[in-house]
Amino acid sequence: MALIVQKYGGSSVADAEKIKNVARRVTRAKDEGKQVVVVVSAMGDTTDNLIKLAYQVNEQPGDRELDVLLSTGELVSSTLLALALESLGCKAVSLTGAQAGIHTDSSYSRARILRIDPKRVINELEKGNIVIVAGFQGVTQEMDITTLGRGGSDTTAVALAASLNAEICQIYTDVEGVYTADPRLVSEARKLKEIGYEEMLELASCGARVMHNRAVELGGLYNVPILVVSSFSDSPGTVIRKEVSMEVRNKVRGIAYDTNVSKVTIVGVPDHPGIAAAIFEPLARANINIDNIFQNASINNITDLTFTLTRGDLVKAMSIVEPVVKSVGGKQCVADSTLAKVSIVGTGIQNAPGYAARMFRTLYEQGINIQLITTSEIRITCIISEDRVKDAVQALHQAFELEKSQP
Amino acid sequence: MALIVQKYGGSSVADAEKIKNVARRVTRAKDEGKQVVVVVSAMGDTTDNLIKLAYQVNEQPGDRELDVLLSTGELVSSTLLALALESLGCKAVSLTGAQAGIHTDSSYSRARILRIDPKRVINELEKGNIVIVAGFQGVTQEMDITTLGRGGSDTTAVALAASLNAEICQIYTDVEGVYTADPRLVSEARKLKEIGYEEMLELASCGARVMHNRAVELGGLYNVPILVVSSFSDSPGTVIRKEVSMEVRNKVRGIAYDTNVSKVTIVGVPDHPGIAAAIFEPLARANINIDNIFQNASINNITDLTFTLTRGDLVKAMSIVEPVVKSVGGKQCVADSTLAKVSIVGTGIQNAPGYAARMFRTLYEQGINIQLITTSEIRITCIISEDRVKDAVQALHQAFELEKSQP
Repeated sequence: MALIVQKYGGSSVADAEKIKNVARRVTRAKDEGKQVVVVVSAMGDTTDNLIKLAYQVNEQPGDRELDVLLSTGELVSSTLLALALESLGCKAVSLTGAQAGIHTDSSYSRARILRIDPKRVINELEKGNIVIVAGFQGVTQEMDITTLGRGGSDTTAVALAASLNAEICQIYTDVEGVYTADPRLVSEARKLKEIGYEEMLELASCGARVMHNRAVELGGLYNVPILVVSSFSDSPGTVIRKEVSMEVRNKVRGIAYDTNVSKVTIVGVPDHPGIAAAIFEPLARANINIDNIFQNASINNITDLTFTLTRGDLVKAMSIVEPVVKSVGGKQCVADSTLAKVSIVGTGIQNAPGYAARMFRTLYEQGINIQLITTSEIRITCIISEDRVKDAVQALHQAFELEKSQP
Repeated sequence: MALIVQKYGGSSVADAEKIKNVARRVTRAKDEGKQVVVVVSAMGDTTDNLIKLAYQVNEQPGDRELDVLLSTGELVSSTLLALALESLGCKAVSLTGAQAGIHTDSSYSRARILRIDPKRVINELEKGNIVIVAGFQGVTQEMDITTLGRGGSDTTAVALAASLNAEICQIYTDVEGVYTADPRLVSEARKLKEIGYEEMLELASCGARVMHNRAVELGGLYNVPILVVSSFSDSPGTVIRKEVSMEVRNKVRGIAYDTNVSKVTIVGVPDHPGIAAAIFEPLARANINIDNIFQNASINNITDLTFTLTRGDLVKAMSIVEPVVKSVGGKQCVADSTLAKVSIVGTGIQNAPGYAARMFRTLYEQGINIQLITTSEIRITCIISEDRVKDAVQALHQAFELEKSQP
């Protein structure tokens, strides 16, 4: 019998009425003759409220206890969904992460799944049950409860789909799918029927968050097709899957942007070994995530060094870098927090030249200055002024003819 | 090292401030050099709110799912207490019922503890941790989560104390201990230093609820001393323990009363075999709990039958009994819902005559009519009119000199 895994996020199960809606949706798949495993997140703001409580009793709550505390949110939503299904006359059973055999390492608050032992899940499916699994959580060898960190429930769903050989993992969320660009910026933006795992990862890393990268990576690794679809409408959504039709389709798949970008430029740094380490080691120790690093070719052993980071870290980063720059004899540090990234993404880019040139020309024709450029095999990103993002995304969408449906 | 078990009820952990208070109290025992295991109930109204949610999605929620749902309340309070202890600089770890080795049968919503495997608890204690155990819950052989029903967290605490050979099980609650009579009725009522298990059970069955009988029975079975004490004050409380000083102390220990009493009298029942079954079987099927049954000696094969029950069940009971009485040729049914029980309790009663007579005379001198009398080995109960309860309790308290401290 065909088996599918569905995952519903916190906004889809935010109250009793929404849970009943989800139950009705789940029964449809069951009515189509499929075995159904459902993974749920905690209801609405539950997790935030639990975290608030923890901070009320301890300003630095320990990870082990926090994980048990947070795991209760998914237990509540999973049992309520099982009860809602039963009231519709469906046999259903909820399982905790531990009962579902989700074994993790013991890195509390960001545990990694080591293996899934789906014996109990299979057993319950064979009894005719819809199986509801509490997302976001697992259990260590010592039977301690862990949580999987950000994107945890998506990861639970894709990992279960992989271990159960599900035909598809359906992620029900509050967006309708993956678009060629943000529909709020580009009215012609088109929802994609499908997209490759790597393309999805690149789009997400440039700001198009529909699900967490970790789950997409896992899907790619085990080749699990992932459907991203709205839990509030019946529109068809987007399937993330292995690239199958690379040759025949438009080589740029989407335009992404991210306005949470700031930049630090260090002017006049002596270009000798150890300088980069001297600057970036203290930043790493302060847990500041550096996005990209750019270094100009040096002239007379003097170079300029630029790095980008999220805006929230800028002040802290400057306070760390400025004394270092002085101590190594650099001239000055300049910060800019008015920037944005605009990217074109598509597996086709790696095999066809001319995409970068077309991107740069399009921005030039709009009078948009490109401050920095970074690329991956399937992505080209330009850092520009934030106030030109909308113009850039619209122009690029048009230039690469993304409003046109694929052949 | 001496080991104690403490239990804190829902009102003691109702919010973050109260949890911090409990944490401070727990550290005191630790500072006295003891190993400490703490059992907690769910915060304040948590359990009621979870039940409400369940009924919003299913009018008849199944027990298995409901048990997982309700068990989360104790997970939240136990992790928060562990965090609060850590913020005071104490090493603490919370354990779920399953992790604490509390194995139950699979009677969801009213599971019985089959055995406790305290390996993990002992292990954590040896590491120097205060161990917080989520009360009210256990796990079946199939790793399904169960709850223990009413009085569940008290039962968890006493059972853990028994299996760990604790020197005492301390029940922190919102009463100050066990009194010779309800202090709201009798201003001279005295808090008892200690009381026997059976005496406590009899007092409780007559309305003096300080903790659930199930936990007291378990304490008696394994001879675990139980201290009942207020979590909001520092007064010493009452120890429930094996009767050790039976001979030297006052033979009546306390006066209890219960105003939730109603009575049904069936007049003129033919006294032949099978009549009692015909009347009480349909009541049992309707899940109506009969408290006591009284049958007068029959004259000419006609008898009167009286039974007592809680007031909430009276209307339903009458609707069941009336047709039965007609069908067996009984004369009539009379209901009375204005009654109360007044009891004297004490292990000494069984060895010394004259207590019953003194009780009856005391009530007679107050002009209080005794409608029914029931006794156990250590209790004498009179059913009287509800509006005379206060007079009865005060007069009996004085007649048995309970205001006087024991020798």
